[in-house]
Amino acid sequence: MDFTPSARAADLSERVGRFIDERILPIEAQYHRDVAALRESGGDPWVPLPLLAELRAEARKAGLWNLFLPAAHAGDYAARFGTDGGTGLTNTDYAPIAELTGRSFLAPHVFNCNAPDTGNMEVLLQYGDQAQRDRWLDPLLDGSIRSAFGMTEPEVASSDATNMAATAVLDGDEVVLNGRKWWTTGIGHPDCAVILFMGLTFPDADKHRRHTTVLVPVDAPGVTVERLLPAMGRYDEPFGHGEVSFTDVRVPATSIVLGPGRAFEIAQGRLGPGRVHHCMRLIGLAETALEAACRRGLERTAFGRPIARLGGNRERIAKARIAIDAARLLVLNAAWKLDTVGALGALSEISQIKAHVPAMAQEVIDFAMQIHGGAGLSDDLPLSAAWSTARAIRLADGPDEVHLDLVGRLELAKHAQQAAR
Amino acid sequence: MDFTPSARAADLSERVGRFIDERILPIEAQYHRDVAALRESGGDPWVPLPLLAELRAEARKAGLWNLFLPAAHAGDYAARFGTDGGTGLTNTDYAPIAELTGRSFLAPHVFNCNAPDTGNMEVLLQYGDQAQRDRWLDPLLDGSIRSAFGMTEPEVASSDATNMAATAVLDGDEVVLNGRKWWTTGIGHPDCAVILFMGLTFPDADKHRRHTTVLVPVDAPGVTVERLLPAMGRYDEPFGHGEVSFTDVRVPATSIVLGPGRAFEIAQGRLGPGRVHHCMRLIGLAETALEAACRRGLERTAFGRPIARLGGNRERIAKARIAIDAARLLVLNAAWKLDTVGALGALSEISQIKAHVPAMAQEVIDFAMQIHGGAGLSDDLPLSAAWSTARAIRLADGPDEVHLDLVGRLELAKHAQQAAR
Amino acid sequence: MDFTPSARAADLSERVGRFIDERILPIEAQYHRDVAALRESGGDPWVPLPLLAELRAEARKAGLWNLFLPAAHAGDYAARFGTDGGTGLTNTDYAPIAELTGRSFLAPHVFNCNAPDTGNMEVLLQYGDQAQRDRWLDPLLDGSIRSAFGMTEPEVASSDATNMAATAVLDGDEVVLNGRKWWTTGIGHPDCAVILFMGLTFPDADKHRRHTTVLVPVDAPGVTVERLLPAMGRYDEPFGHGEVSFTDVRVPATSIVLGPGRAFEIAQGRLGPGRVHHCMRLIGLAETALEAACRRGLERTAFGRPIARLGGNRERIAKARIAIDAARLLVLNAAWKLDTVGALGALSEISQIKAHVPAMAQEVIDFAMQIHGGAGLSDDLPLSAAWSTARAIRLADGPDEVHLDLVGRLELAKHAQQAAR
Amino acid sequence: MDFTPSARAADLSERVGRFIDERILPIEAQYHRDVAALRESGGDPWVPLPLLAELRAEARKAGLWNLFLPAAHAGDYAARFGTDGGTGLTNTDYAPIAELTGRSFLAPHVFNCNAPDTGNMEVLLQYGDQAQRDRWLDPLLDGSIRSAFGMTEPEVASSDATNMAATAVLDGDEVVLNGRKWWTTGIGHPDCAVILFMGLTFPDADKHRRHTTVLVPVDAPGVTVERLLPAMGRYDEPFGHGEVSFTDVRVPATSIVLGPGRAFEIAQGRLGPGRVHHCMRLIGLAETALEAACRRGLERTAFGRPIARLGGNRERIAKARIAIDAARLLVLNAAWKLDTVGALGALSEISQIKAHVPAMAQEVIDFAMQIHGGAGLSDDLPLSAAWSTARAIRLADGPDEVHLDLVGRLELAKHAQQAAR
Repeated sequence: MDFTPSARAADLSERVGRFIDERILPIEAQYHRDVAALRESGGDPWVPLPLLAELRAEARKAGLWNLFLPAAHAGDYAARFGTDGGTGLTNTDYAPIAELTGRSFLAPHVFNCNAPDTGNMEVLLQYGDQAQRDRWLDPLLDGSIRSAFGMTEPEVASSDATNMAATAVLDGDEVVLNGRKWWTTGIGHPDCAVILFMGLTFPDADKHRRHTTVLVPVDAPGVTVERLLPAMGRYDEPFGHGEVSFTDVRVPATSIVLGPGRAFEIAQGRLGPGRVHHCMRLIGLAETALEAACRRGLERTAFGRPIARLGGNRERIAKARIAIDAARLLVLNAAWKLDTVGALGALSEISQIKAHVPAMAQEVIDFAMQIHGGAGLSDDLPLSAAWSTARAIRLADGPDEVHLDLVGRLELAKHAQQAAR
Repeated sequence: MDFTPSARAADLSERVGRFIDERILPIEAQYHRDVAALRESGGDPWVPLPLLAELRAEARKAGLWNLFLPAAHAGDYAARFGTDGGTGLTNTDYAPIAELTGRSFLAPHVFNCNAPDTGNMEVLLQYGDQAQRDRWLDPLLDGSIRSAFGMTEPEVASSDATNMAATAVLDGDEVVLNGRKWWTTGIGHPDCAVILFMGLTFPDADKHRRHTTVLVPVDAPGVTVERLLPAMGRYDEPFGHGEVSFTDVRVPATSIVLGPGRAFEIAQGRLGPGRVHHCMRLIGLAETALEAACRRGLERTAFGRPIARLGGNRERIAKARIAIDAARLLVLNAAWKLDTVGALGALSEISQIKAHVPAMAQEVIDFAMQIHGGAGLSDDLPLSAAWSTARAIRLADGPDEVHLDLVGRLELAKHAQQAAR
Repeated sequence: MDFTPSARAADLSERVGRFIDERILPIEAQYHRDVAALRESGGDPWVPLPLLAELRAEARKAGLWNLFLPAAHAGDYAARFGTDGGTGLTNTDYAPIAELTGRSFLAPHVFNCNAPDTGNMEVLLQYGDQAQRDRWLDPLLDGSIRSAFGMTEPEVASSDATNMAATAVLDGDEVVLNGRKWWTTGIGHPDCAVILFMGLTFPDADKHRRHTTVLVPVDAPGVTVERLLPAMGRYDEPFGHGEVSFTDVRVPATSIVLGPGRAFEIAQGRLGPGRVHHCMRLIGLAETALEAACRRGLERTAFGRPIARLGGNRERIAKARIAIDAARLLVLNAAWKLDTVGALGALSEISQIKAHVPAMAQEVIDFAMQIHGGAGLSDDLPLSAAWSTARAIRLADGPDEVHLDLVGRLELAKHAQQAAR
Repeated sequence: MDFTPSARAADLSERVGRFIDERILPIEAQYHRDVAALRESGGDPWVPLPLLAELRAEARKAGLWNLFLPAAHAGDYAARFGTDGGTGLTNTDYAPIAELTGRSFLAPHVFNCNAPDTGNMEVLLQYGDQAQRDRWLDPLLDGSIRSAFGMTEPEVASSDATNMAATAVLDGDEVVLNGRKWWTTGIGHPDCAVILFMGLTFPDADKHRRHTTVLVPVDAPGVTVERLLPAMGRYDEPFGHGEVSFTDVRVPATSIVLGPGRAFEIAQGRLGPGRVHHCMRLIGLAETALEAACRRGLERTAFGRPIARLGGNRERIAKARIAIDAARLLVLNAAWKLDTVGALGALSEISQIKAHVPAMAQEVIDFAMQIHGGAGLSDDLPLSAAWSTARAIRLADGPDEVHLDLVGRLELAKHAQQAAR
């Protein structure tokens, strides 16, 4: 177990951290206030403020761009699209960078490392053909378009992804899409140009070979963004989550990724690194919450003492410290296993972190809100939005319970043979 | 310990339940959608929709009005202002009614039993003089005006209420108010006419005799609602929470309740029943969340089984059942102690429920959201708003930690003499 | 919900409390030390010290004897066997008495109210015929013999009681028993004269009609106490838990209780009140632990303050206070439901307390041990033994998980029809 | 963060694992049964059975002896006393070996790596003078004597070690000891020859410079083992925990380690690696408990399914898996920090694991007991004893709460300067 980042990664990490501290965090609160004011005054909060584009340009110029690109599949894309050093990073190398970007709501986007675009780019990189990559991957890496991911459906329990009922029917050299997706993350962004759609193609096949992934232009006839969905009352502009209907949407069969019936194969490959990214960002978020809790605990006084010294507060701070450190080590371990034995060998570790880390972050942030009193619940501080983020990720990419179940099955499988004897 | 409601209370309870089931719940989701649409289309979401006034009129006509009025202090107000039977109820009698109203966001207001108005009316009833009651209590009980409560301040740790720094300075036959309050609940309502303001009058007195409660007309010169505050991203229209500045606000000294320096005396008396109400409403809310969780668990299928039968879901349902029942019994017991031995004798029990019940409700609702998947976080269901309500009450009227601390002190006090020997 | 005990029960409760405080608690620690010394010096720790018989005689003389006898079935037994007032008590009446006896390891036995004898006596009272009652119930109520209960088996998962594999085969006017039971509680007592044995009679019947309850004299040929079992390292003398083998044990068919195949019917009736008793005793035990924790917290000093005021200790005391009070209310409610709607109507409530209360007690006692430091783990204080008691009851009469599952099923059943529509 | 063990350590680890699997585990259950039988038949359970000496000889011959010796201070002791390779190991290297030894009650002793001897040997190695090392360290490393550690006292709250009241008064070239210690671990072993005693020398000095560590022969006049103490009902033979009185015990001043008043300096250095050892052993113990839980869950059937698939069991298995893995990573990280930045730099990490790991192990073992039903509480399986071990370590070397408090203080200290500005 060697979690030490390479010298290059350590350098990038240091520069990313500095960029966030110096360029992003100082303006972040004002950015959110400006968006809120825009909304209040009847403006469109879904159009990113110009400042964001400036920061993105600056990050790209600094080579802090597309750092998520995986060493194993980056090819020449890293060199072509602005990653300093010109190659991708291992999961172990990228994990501490992801943690840093998690400290800020804007940072992942500033560095072109935000979900769901990163996952979608990875799919294109790993499973897309050259034409698909030319059409969609290049502009995504370039930052000129954005993308969305359409999997979850309102009418079925999506915790069991094989329940997906939207259809992707092959019809000559076309594929015809029908159905309704929701929690289609990223669809609210004005630059969103493409949706990765998963639909049922072979209803009678083995249940993991029934579905197909299709690249669907947002402006294809029959695609309708029915509404944008708030999660815990928040729309998470400018990316957002949408409910999208697909009515007799026809796209060329060349829009199919990897091949008909191979959606689960793709999803499996897509999700490993994505879960590491989500979890590391949440660790960064939890760290900011703990830092805020400590500062507040020292600054405010009640009953004649700093509130950090009242009741169980200091113990809660200690438990948060332990919880964050343990979670970070679990994620680093999962990243290292991904790098050394691959997604299949890291199956338990990936599900462990997905089941454990968001709940941990939710709890730490809840404590931080509590120690801040009313301010903690308000939008004056980023804590309330942070809580919503952590809460939502307990459901995104599979609810905690599904991941726990997998971890339990894998654990029992170690002993099944002995038991069978 | 006899928690049996009187026959009259049982009858009222049954009628309130029926009213909620038949008149309020069927329209509630649409009400929220209409408000949201109003907001989207640039309308004013703070003006209650006409439907609400109709329901209120109907409830009043049915005698299901001002049921919160306490038997001990109701005097002839219950008879004058629409309570069927013409007298107030004990805490034990009212508790199950409060639970029922907690099942709906609108219900407390429909029955003129919503916070903070109930608490403010109790203050006027118990501590106001005849002129104060004539001016403010009558229209409040009549439902023609609304009120707000201004205690918490942004610049100090309000968990220690003696920290309050806003001033209420006596100046001849006037009192002059300066300072800034926030989380002034109820201030957003267009009918809000009066604020109960707590301010520092005698900085050198014993710390519980420094502050004064003053009745301040919302339109008094120098009173400015600086902004309305979201809690967990929600504004809770039409009541809302505001940040309010007071700049050289002059009101007659006759606006002082009970007398200068007696704000804590009032707050103490105000909070006992109020905490019972909050907690019983939260129990109603938690029940609706558990019911929704059960229904969803039975309706949706994953991995070939209803999700209620997957993993630990059935255990979680059982634990929620136990947690809600235990919490209800604790609150009934606190209500019964309030009725039989008074607020002082019920000090521990009141703080016990305030420390325990909101956190219980938060947890049950969190589970209910989780079993609903993405829908649980959306605004399509009332769960996400319910969670915010429970979360906010963990801070309102004193954070959990302050109440736990009091419970711990009282418990230790039982043994202090023995230890001293 | 009226949990108020009758005047007679309140009087008995007061006298039981006084007896425990004045006669039992002052000698209890020494009693345990004497037994330990006896064991060390090679004596037989299973023979109760004479003092115990003296206390029992005294309790009986005071009419504080067999107070567990249920009002509904006591008949003239209460009058004949020493219960002051001559009739049985309701569950609501007896519950506070059971709590008091739980404060002492010896008290339940002193008042002839200890498990498993109480449960066995209830079986005989409710389901035994006159000859069975004459032979076994009279001496049990008289205190001249003791009894054991044989259900759990080492080779099967006894959480599912239908797994029981020991056999009770009908053979003419005899019944022949074979198999092995363990955790046969009470078997270690030198006065133990009879075992209530459950065995498989009709392997092909409906699974709840397969087993038969048989009264087996301990000295019947073929009955062998193979060993006594420690639970968490303790033998719980003088009652103990044994592993007992039954090899071709022949007893007359008149030893069958109620009839062949009716063991589950009996067990169901036996367990309701028994679970209330267990839980109330555990609440008494948890109260003593919390009292000890408070005293220790006030007496000992570390880092310049009483340890009760260090870190989260005061919060933990508060949480224990809340947990105990909530648990007590749940048990009183279950007792009241047993009294008012019977065992079937109280099914969920009984399983709720059995799933909840022992775990609560375990946690409170664990905290009390922790605040006592090393002394808490030693045998100088009763805490360590108390912990073992609570831990064992999480398995006795069905593990927590089985009870939670039942509560969950009953909760879901309320909604099953709606879901089926 | 590089937790990879050296090639030599990996090899030793593999051999230790094999030795435990092949030589110790197969006989361990019988060993405990033999000791129990010895006790039952009036024999002395404190004399280790001859088998233990044989295993120790075998381990030593294999070079698997004194592996705990720290690379930094081992000098030529590792070569002289049987460690294969002839040098000590880093904490990172030794940690996985400690985990393996934790899988067995006997293993630590078999490899001469058991507490408190390891800690005492480290003290002698690091702080003892040559004469002290010749007299006590050589035979300890040789395994011909055993040692005890006397710190905790019955009359004071030992969580604050500065409370220690036993005295070590300088008198010419002698030091005179008076007082009473308990939980003097190791004192029950017949080969125990020396006690490391901590006593008060300078009552008026700074509170961390008041106490002195003295090497006291067990047979010194005035040393009396008053009794052996059970922890959770267990005596933990053959090491045990004793209450020891010191009455005018006179030993030469040359028995003082490091110098008068320097006991805390020694304790600080002693405890870092010791806590890593304790925690890694507990992780091994928790792993065995989880393995047993999985096997039992697969083997036993209830309600028609393997119990692992009932209710929340599979989730609990998953949570145990995550908890153990997270704990192991925390301990490895603490070991690595000890190696790379020393005890002072690893202060928080060491207290983190001490506060976190024993409680984690306690919980995992509790679950394993529960899934085993009655067998889990019995002495037929090692789970019940394992639970007691974990529980006791939550108090040994400072209770959880003291360690949490330190972690909290260190966390807040990072922000104190900012707050002060």
